[in-house]
Amino acid sequence: MIERIGRRTLRFAGRPVLLSHAAAVGKKEGEGPLGGRFDFVAENDRMDEKSWELAESRLQRAAIRMALEKGGLKKEDLDVILAGDLLNQCISSFLASVDSDVPYLGQYGACSTMAQGLALGACLVEGGAARRALAAASSHFCSAERQYRFPLAYGGQRTPTAQWTATAAGAAVLQGGAGKERQPSIRVTHAVFGKMVEMGVTDAGNMGAAMAPAAFDTITALLDDLHAAPTDFDCIVTGDLGHVGADILLTLLRGQGVDLSPVYSDCGSLLYGDEQDAHAGGSGCGCSAAVLCGPLLRDMREGKLRRLVFAGTGAMMSPVSVQQKQPIAGVCHAVVLERSEA
Amino acid sequence: MIERIGRRTLRFAGRPVLLSHAAAVGKKEGEGPLGGRFDFVAENDRMDEKSWELAESRLQRAAIRMALEKGGLKKEDLDVILAGDLLNQCISSFLASVDSDVPYLGQYGACSTMAQGLALGACLVEGGAARRALAAASSHFCSAERQYRFPLAYGGQRTPTAQWTATAAGAAVLQGGAGKERQPSIRVTHAVFGKMVEMGVTDAGNMGAAMAPAAFDTITALLDDLHAAPTDFDCIVTGDLGHVGADILLTLLRGQGVDLSPVYSDCGSLLYGDEQDAHAGGSGCGCSAAVLCGPLLRDMREGKLRRLVFAGTGAMMSPVSVQQKQPIAGVCHAVVLERSEA
Repeated sequence: MIERIGRRTLRFAGRPVLLSHAAAVGKKEGEGPLGGRFDFVAENDRMDEKSWELAESRLQRAAIRMALEKGGLKKEDLDVILAGDLLNQCISSFLASVDSDVPYLGQYGACSTMAQGLALGACLVEGGAARRALAAASSHFCSAERQYRFPLAYGGQRTPTAQWTATAAGAAVLQGGAGKERQPSIRVTHAVFGKMVEMGVTDAGNMGAAMAPAAFDTITALLDDLHAAPTDFDCIVTGDLGHVGADILLTLLRGQGVDLSPVYSDCGSLLYGDEQDAHAGGSGCGCSAAVLCGPLLRDMREGKLRRLVFAGTGAMMSPVSVQQKQPIAGVCHAVVLERSEA
Repeated sequence: MIERIGRRTLRFAGRPVLLSHAAAVGKKEGEGPLGGRFDFVAENDRMDEKSWELAESRLQRAAIRMALEKGGLKKEDLDVILAGDLLNQCISSFLASVDSDVPYLGQYGACSTMAQGLALGACLVEGGAARRALAAASSHFCSAERQYRFPLAYGGQRTPTAQWTATAAGAAVLQGGAGKERQPSIRVTHAVFGKMVEMGVTDAGNMGAAMAPAAFDTITALLDDLHAAPTDFDCIVTGDLGHVGADILLTLLRGQGVDLSPVYSDCGSLLYGDEQDAHAGGSGCGCSAAVLCGPLLRDMREGKLRRLVFAGTGAMMSPVSVQQKQPIAGVCHAVVLERSEA
């Protein structure tokens, strides 16, 4: 049963189980501070494919395959796949699952896609529409640069506020929560669907600023609806505001008397080390998907984190909309995950 | 409560109400055989906007506004908007709802987007995640030609199997079904989420052939799961296979001993007259959205149709995936709508 609490928060009485998860990343991501916490690190970002788009698709396919394997599942155990990416017409996701023979619902939430898929997936398993749902998302630095910015060979300069699109993918399987388990499990307890928030940012090189107000809106709604303080959670993680957006979010919340800093992280800030030339941090659907489905969920499995808010942030725009001087809107979907002891 | 019937069909015990709906179309679509059955026909396809993309967005915005008005609703009565389109990063949908202040879930199902949004929306209202959900989709001939094919001014030739992207948008509001009503209502009784089906079609000028096997798969699953014959429904409509795809679907079903023809229509075949030079018929997210939210749902309101299967079909591809010689996969999501007498 899904109960609506307060203004916008959904509470899942049945507490869907996040059964298994996997993350696959590129070479640079594997060399970063989280490198040892992913399930697969590519030796090179082309991954023996003929194009960057196919390489991205292969990365998402790998994450899905490993998530299933780790859960002892086969594709036919899934009732639905919710997946998306940044490429035009979301082709890396369609190509990753085209031969899966599983019902497929393409999602587009820009870099919030993983959170959107998890929140919707939780609704579907909790409501009885699916016994098991898989959420997945991916991005690839080279396919994104080509599509959104400059040809790689051009060697375009990046502004300090620019984020680095992660070569990464994550996948997680949700299952209806009925029944008691013999071992600790990770449960989805709440979710908030995000509103688009647009504050006049038109600089495609500063997505963090465009997305921070949406993260503020969603996190505020969640805390208000649950009558919770940030420290009621072990970690509240956005994905991906980067260093610039993360600072703006903390400042906006401080203006409301809320200090998020003791428990706050951002997937984009976590993914790369200072010496990796990623400027304002990581971004892309795959960044938050891989940081969640790799390090963060591992931390939950290992008991290092008990209650986690995963607040995926996306920037709604396209090269065409930016050229046409349209605003860039942020959106932020949140899911609350809890480690449930046996 | 959502019950899973047979292999894949979802049954909505609470029978969510399709409360209101509206369709907005371009000039050519208004001049076609269904012209008098839309809520709004644009005088010109630019709609006083500076770009085709903004015109498309305006059309979707108009459909959403009218759907709300016809239901006596305001935006704040909605808990979620599920919307999508064909443009890169789905910008016409984001721009249509950017200032709505309603939680927004971007959907990408190519031309099946309206059906995907309705099926997911029904799951959300039935499961309790939303009291009211709006599904919307749009497309525009000129924005699609520019993005997928040739600049308009180039005057590219079209193959006979090519479909004409409709300048059109549709929107519908779903509401939890509890309580008895004093007047006839339209209810969502069942849904099937589609699998991607790929049969080797690589010709982007023959989408009907790429999508027909997916429609076959979903319609077969629905009929099997419900132990139903086609004539148990007043109308089974695909959107949009066009003339070529519709023929293939009928042939495929006939091979299984199923004669769909007595109740079958296709939104793409219905939208344009023979003299309108649309070749194999209409396509685009807006085609099935507008034909459903205009003529078909009007027919249901007027009692001319009682049980309708709306099977939205989409082709998963992009210009890049086609150039890279990747397959084009079809997908088909179905919802069953029923007129419920007071």
